[in-house]
Amino acid sequence: MSQLDDLLRDLVIGNRILAKEDVVDAYGHISVRHPHNSKRFFMSRSLAPELVERHDLIEFDQEGEPVNDKRHPYLERFIHAAIFEARPDVTAVVHAHAEDTLPFGLVSTPLEPVIHSGSFIGGKVPVWDIRKKFGDTNLLVTNMMQGRDLAKCMGNGNVALMRGHGFVSTARSIIEVVRLSVYLPRNARVQMNAMRMGGKVKVLSKGEIAARATGYKPDSPETWRAWEYWATRAGCGSKIGRPLRTRTKK
Amino acid sequence: MSQLDDLLRDLVIGNRILAKEDVVDAYGHISVRHPHNSKRFFMSRSLAPELVERHDLIEFDQEGEPVNDKRHPYLERFIHAAIFEARPDVTAVVHAHAEDTLPFGLVSTPLEPVIHSGSFIGGKVPVWDIRKKFGDTNLLVTNMMQGRDLAKCMGNGNVALMRGHGFVSTARSIIEVVRLSVYLPRNARVQMNAMRMGGKVKVLSKGEIAARATGYKPDSPETWRAWEYWATRAGCGSKIGRPLRTRTKK
Amino acid sequence: MSQLDDLLRDLVIGNRILAKEDVVDAYGHISVRHPHNSKRFFMSRSLAPELVERHDLIEFDQEGEPVNDKRHPYLERFIHAAIFEARPDVTAVVHAHAEDTLPFGLVSTPLEPVIHSGSFIGGKVPVWDIRKKFGDTNLLVTNMMQGRDLAKCMGNGNVALMRGHGFVSTARSIIEVVRLSVYLPRNARVQMNAMRMGGKVKVLSKGEIAARATGYKPDSPETWRAWEYWATRAGCGSKIGRPLRTRTKK
Amino acid sequence: MSQLDDLLRDLVIGNRILAKEDVVDAYGHISVRHPHNSKRFFMSRSLAPELVERHDLIEFDQEGEPVNDKRHPYLERFIHAAIFEARPDVTAVVHAHAEDTLPFGLVSTPLEPVIHSGSFIGGKVPVWDIRKKFGDTNLLVTNMMQGRDLAKCMGNGNVALMRGHGFVSTARSIIEVVRLSVYLPRNARVQMNAMRMGGKVKVLSKGEIAARATGYKPDSPETWRAWEYWATRAGCGSKIGRPLRTRTKK
Repeated sequence: MSQLDDLLRDLVIGNRILAKEDVVDAYGHISVRHPHNSKRFFMSRSLAPELVERHDLIEFDQEGEPVNDKRHPYLERFIHAAIFEARPDVTAVVHAHAEDTLPFGLVSTPLEPVIHSGSFIGGKVPVWDIRKKFGDTNLLVTNMMQGRDLAKCMGNGNVALMRGHGFVSTARSIIEVVRLSVYLPRNARVQMNAMRMGGKVKVLSKGEIAARATGYKPDSPETWRAWEYWATRAGCGSKIGRPLRTRTKK
Repeated sequence: MSQLDDLLRDLVIGNRILAKEDVVDAYGHISVRHPHNSKRFFMSRSLAPELVERHDLIEFDQEGEPVNDKRHPYLERFIHAAIFEARPDVTAVVHAHAEDTLPFGLVSTPLEPVIHSGSFIGGKVPVWDIRKKFGDTNLLVTNMMQGRDLAKCMGNGNVALMRGHGFVSTARSIIEVVRLSVYLPRNARVQMNAMRMGGKVKVLSKGEIAARATGYKPDSPETWRAWEYWATRAGCGSKIGRPLRTRTKK
Repeated sequence: MSQLDDLLRDLVIGNRILAKEDVVDAYGHISVRHPHNSKRFFMSRSLAPELVERHDLIEFDQEGEPVNDKRHPYLERFIHAAIFEARPDVTAVVHAHAEDTLPFGLVSTPLEPVIHSGSFIGGKVPVWDIRKKFGDTNLLVTNMMQGRDLAKCMGNGNVALMRGHGFVSTARSIIEVVRLSVYLPRNARVQMNAMRMGGKVKVLSKGEIAARATGYKPDSPETWRAWEYWATRAGCGSKIGRPLRTRTKK
Repeated sequence: MSQLDDLLRDLVIGNRILAKEDVVDAYGHISVRHPHNSKRFFMSRSLAPELVERHDLIEFDQEGEPVNDKRHPYLERFIHAAIFEARPDVTAVVHAHAEDTLPFGLVSTPLEPVIHSGSFIGGKVPVWDIRKKFGDTNLLVTNMMQGRDLAKCMGNGNVALMRGHGFVSTARSIIEVVRLSVYLPRNARVQMNAMRMGGKVKVLSKGEIAARATGYKPDSPETWRAWEYWATRAGCGSKIGRPLRTRTKK
């Protein structure tokens, strides 16, 4: 199989995992940058992630428009286009409405990493409020101007919350962005529960966040272990590619 | 298939979705207005929504009585009859006891839309207290007088809470009322969680609620995407009618 | 089938429902009074309720000892024996550790009915603290003296909480005690969530509780609807006896 | 089957139960001391516990290194090695990130036993903060020095929380450590919910904790009942060894 084949297979699996782990429901999407053309990316047509198959994937251009494909795309594809444009370091993007991230978009308390699996959030998460610049909208990101404003709010971070709507997360790979997106609501719940006990809540230090970011290896057995587990839970265990069971310690 | 056949098929699917998504349990019901006789509506006989099949549906008259059918109806069918009477714009009605909507019926804080998927709630939700006018009852709406009082409390809105009991929601179609009813408890949870962090909670503006209401299209791919997803989860994927997979972008 | 056969079949189904609805896990039990000998009752041998079958049921005497059966009984069978002794009006008893009832055993705020499905709780629920009379124990009710003290605390009510341990609930039938036990944790969650919003929480009035108790009919279609639903969810749909589908409205 | 065979079979079942009961996800692990060589222990290779089978188990030495096995081990195996070293009374160890235990690692309020099934926690749970002695790390226990510091913090207790990371629990048997680990998050949730109602929360007394510890019998029908139940839920019902169904009361 080619690199592209592998990537699209993983994109399908990523869709299924996000659905199974309650990060997305009928809404929300995941995209990956084209490995041979950095101005393009792949994402499903308008379809619930749980139902996405290989032939549902569409290639998009840098303005978020489908390339030679007449099927109906997601309305909010501009989130992805704008972030791929602004962030050459980013390979994969998730937009979702995971319930337990939403409260942090409505209040002044910032969401921030409090557990080690949440470290990839990277620090206090900015909240983008579409109303600030675009007034009363349906809250959806339906053009490049809005997408670029969101990307600007996210800056060099990995995550931005969208007030009353959801979040966008980014990473260097599909596996990494799925992992970040799965643990984001968990971090949010733990933070909320800790806050409710009163007193100061200990957050990860900048040094800890940096140590974890440095130590993260996209191809480590630890990374693979989670991917294999989530894929199996999502009914895609047989689709994952690498035969880790025969791997040995180096 | 006729329009009526389609409608009754969707009513069965709506029952199953509400059960699968924990909006109803053994109790709660969904109805749809008769497409050819605006004084009539359809709803299941007394049966848990998860178990409802096509032959369980009964036709009801404007007083909430079964038309030529001796099977046992839901006790609270008057909720539906009274709302169809008061609101010619309404095509479908749900009554349910979804757990996370209930706290808002017990306190002075109003439930209101805080997330975009909750926008169809429409604004601060009124709470109907059966005790106010009818004194000590078993809390059930068991006659037209009570149903009409509830309908009056709801006014031109889409939702009313019923103190210590549940909610009633209305919309222009089955798909729409199911969607509203699925996202209502989610909106309630997000609002409660945001409130617990202290400080002011940002709610949707009137302009945002209006923009979303205006933009909503019952037959859009986005609407269909959720219906297809929920129906599939509820085990009714093969029952839904329109072959969206062959649809193309206009 | 005899009345006894029906009752024991329902006792098996009750076990399965309580497990499926997360009222019990490996621990917790349900019993029913012998229909022909009011000093005897039936309950499973020491086995997780989810796994209970007809042949696991044991007959117990009024002191909580198995009648001609050497299989290992539940340690806390004395809860049941003592309540059947103290309350001739009671036909079925559940003891369980349902998680969301437990907080109310640890604080001074009483659990009380706030939703209509919780009305059968009957009023503010007393909390029995085994430490008060028996000092430091393993918290289990392991003899008749403790069981009688618990029964005394419950008085003429339907429910008592047991501090740091669980609850006991009683009713006139298996179906009724299962229903009460399923809705008890839900009522507790709704009450806790309402309390957290601040301000006064509206509870059911005495008149409402009485109206619901009076109106409850063990054989009504509404009662049966829930039993049929819960049994189906628990995988026992084919075991329930009465063919309600052929029933007609009287 | 030999004692060792039985033990390794139970270790596989323990892995599956912890996964099914949401104590572990892709991460977290359980180990058991070698029955014939107290300086050795068994644990899976780097693999999600839900997927562990008999041939995935590896023997480790007292420094936490695999014995004649080149497969990739868990990074945090030193937690287990250090505890087996420090605590000759311990036979089995679990390390996990169970979500609802995490808030207590971030605040000053101690986690402590409030329900009878949580009594094996043993008292106020110490919180180990890796930052205190090792500064900014990735929070993982990746060498014996860190493992020994954690073991020292745990002292003679059964559990220690790890700030921003998870917990470690220990017991005299696999069954016991699984039980402790399943009920630990439940105890945490009940304690948090009770605290939120305001006022003082009743905790188990020292005498009650002692009475339960003394009364606990690893081979009692009550212990077995839970193991059988959890194993069945985890799909391992046919793997458990002892035929309890034929057991009789002594």
